[in-house]
Amino acid sequence: MIKAKGYAALSAKAPLTPYSFERRDPKDHDVVIDIKFSGICHSDIHMARDEWGFGSPFPMVPGHEIAGVVQAVGPKVTKFKVGDHVGVGCMVDSCRTCVNCKQELENYCIPGNTMTYGSMERDGSAVTQGGYSNIIVTNEDFVLNIPKSFPLDKAAPLLCAGVTTYSPLKHWKAGPGKKVGVLGLGGLGHMAVKYAVAMGADVTVISHSDKKREDAKRFGAVNFINTKNPEVFTEYAVSFDLIINTVSSADLDMASLFGLLKLDGALVNVGAPEKPMSVNVFPLILMRRTFAGSAIGSIKETQEMLNFSAEHQIMPEIEVIAPDQVNAAYERVLKSDVRYRFVLDMAKL
Amino acid sequence: MIKAKGYAALSAKAPLTPYSFERRDPKDHDVVIDIKFSGICHSDIHMARDEWGFGSPFPMVPGHEIAGVVQAVGPKVTKFKVGDHVGVGCMVDSCRTCVNCKQELENYCIPGNTMTYGSMERDGSAVTQGGYSNIIVTNEDFVLNIPKSFPLDKAAPLLCAGVTTYSPLKHWKAGPGKKVGVLGLGGLGHMAVKYAVAMGADVTVISHSDKKREDAKRFGAVNFINTKNPEVFTEYAVSFDLIINTVSSADLDMASLFGLLKLDGALVNVGAPEKPMSVNVFPLILMRRTFAGSAIGSIKETQEMLNFSAEHQIMPEIEVIAPDQVNAAYERVLKSDVRYRFVLDMAKL
Repeated sequence: MIKAKGYAALSAKAPLTPYSFERRDPKDHDVVIDIKFSGICHSDIHMARDEWGFGSPFPMVPGHEIAGVVQAVGPKVTKFKVGDHVGVGCMVDSCRTCVNCKQELENYCIPGNTMTYGSMERDGSAVTQGGYSNIIVTNEDFVLNIPKSFPLDKAAPLLCAGVTTYSPLKHWKAGPGKKVGVLGLGGLGHMAVKYAVAMGADVTVISHSDKKREDAKRFGAVNFINTKNPEVFTEYAVSFDLIINTVSSADLDMASLFGLLKLDGALVNVGAPEKPMSVNVFPLILMRRTFAGSAIGSIKETQEMLNFSAEHQIMPEIEVIAPDQVNAAYERVLKSDVRYRFVLDMAKL
Repeated sequence: MIKAKGYAALSAKAPLTPYSFERRDPKDHDVVIDIKFSGICHSDIHMARDEWGFGSPFPMVPGHEIAGVVQAVGPKVTKFKVGDHVGVGCMVDSCRTCVNCKQELENYCIPGNTMTYGSMERDGSAVTQGGYSNIIVTNEDFVLNIPKSFPLDKAAPLLCAGVTTYSPLKHWKAGPGKKVGVLGLGGLGHMAVKYAVAMGADVTVISHSDKKREDAKRFGAVNFINTKNPEVFTEYAVSFDLIINTVSSADLDMASLFGLLKLDGALVNVGAPEKPMSVNVFPLILMRRTFAGSAIGSIKETQEMLNFSAEHQIMPEIEVIAPDQVNAAYERVLKSDVRYRFVLDMAKL
């Protein structure tokens, strides 16, 4: 076994604390990764506090935006070698046999993929532990290549925030001639704007305040809608092909938001509110609109996103912090007081 | 003006009563139709009782499933001649200039199409009155050709119940190799089953009781799910490409229903509940599912549906009644006590 250290939640009520644990010795197809940076995702907080009611296992080392360097490889690893820059995202395994896995859509594995932390390994050997740590051992099929030109601290958030927004933009065909709205300009939202702009779409940020208006423009959005002014729902009615909803709140006025979509337009949630949302069906019926969801992206798509990010020099805006600041960072995330993603510098562990 | 008679609601609280009124004299492009049969749609009840909160204008002659014979035509009518069998559905005009109208999708007219009853005519001359009457005058662009081989009484319900289910089945590509669920076996549901079967899909009826199990088989469904048994949601999890929801209730367990859909599956509402629905977003995200709506169909698609119905001999199951039974029929519709559509015989007016 490999000794590891990191930060863990010992219970749903407890702040994260320094924690020592063990990683498995590398198996034939495992890659041992020296973790350099780990992003903080809002879902880490939901999971560490068991707010989704999944019954989070404790102790839990959160973190699924992992960027590091290959330290060792198992004897049968073919995709990576020592010294490679690599990433691990939200999943570390899947059933590999269901109809979706067979189509390389492991993110939609029907029995459920193995999450990077908080999941039982498929062989029942251990509960997975995530990236708020110095080392991880992951099957090569779930490891991503990070181009060496790309800074590792800025690569980390791409593994969740990046692919979670890139995937629906690709699936719903954001591109030239398409009007794309991004609801919420946070960790996910700011990546959605940058990708949609790079794909050639006409991008509007939809927010409930003017605070980030200038940032939206800086990221390439051509327009900014402040929903505090109810007239915008008339002014921009029936004008968007696609809205990516990055706001994890059940208290949105969905009827008004649907009204912004054109015929056959889609509003796609990438955030999952804890409570059910109230959905008035009329605006869906009246323009054959769809309300959809999208979950991260496949491994293939994550690699495509990393390559696209390197090619177009698309990087998240980050605030790098030491791991001992993680609890303070959680509080700031909850207040939306971060522009736009915290990244833990694991060298300071 | 042309003298007309029919049945009207004089207020939201009143039963329908015999009513005399006037139709316009035919303009250049108008068709005068001797109404033979008029179907009773659940939305007639919502509208006549102003249950959707649209502010229904009274007196209101409901009815948007109209089948009849051309009695006269305006001087510039080119599409129809006296004696033709024709139909009128849910709309009688649209703006004709918006991006959706330009694409022949008048059902999604952005300023809103002119409904067959309860709408102000676009020239402001009158409020439209519907099919529970002996005569109607309609612009030829919103009149449908009913093949003479097709019985007029059975054609009437196709103008709403038929096209409302045919359209989403076509749009979401029901056909060979696709598993289609139909939620609710009523006026719309039984047509959805017949069309989906004729299109070559593998069709399952999803109902909350076993009462219509035999009928479902008779209409061509290969399977029947009774949702009173909660185990069906496990047994049929992730198995449908498309579910057409014909149930106009906000009290459905949407999370369980979404769970029946495959990756990229769609649940499409054609019925509009009065209240918002409670939608848990997790099942949408987990399989990139969509919750959508669909409104009737375009004129072009309605004609295609009528031709398809004639070619495949697809007919609704109807109970023909005299117009003076309309109030009793409404009560029976509300109790789902009709198999499967009431049709008023206007000759008995």
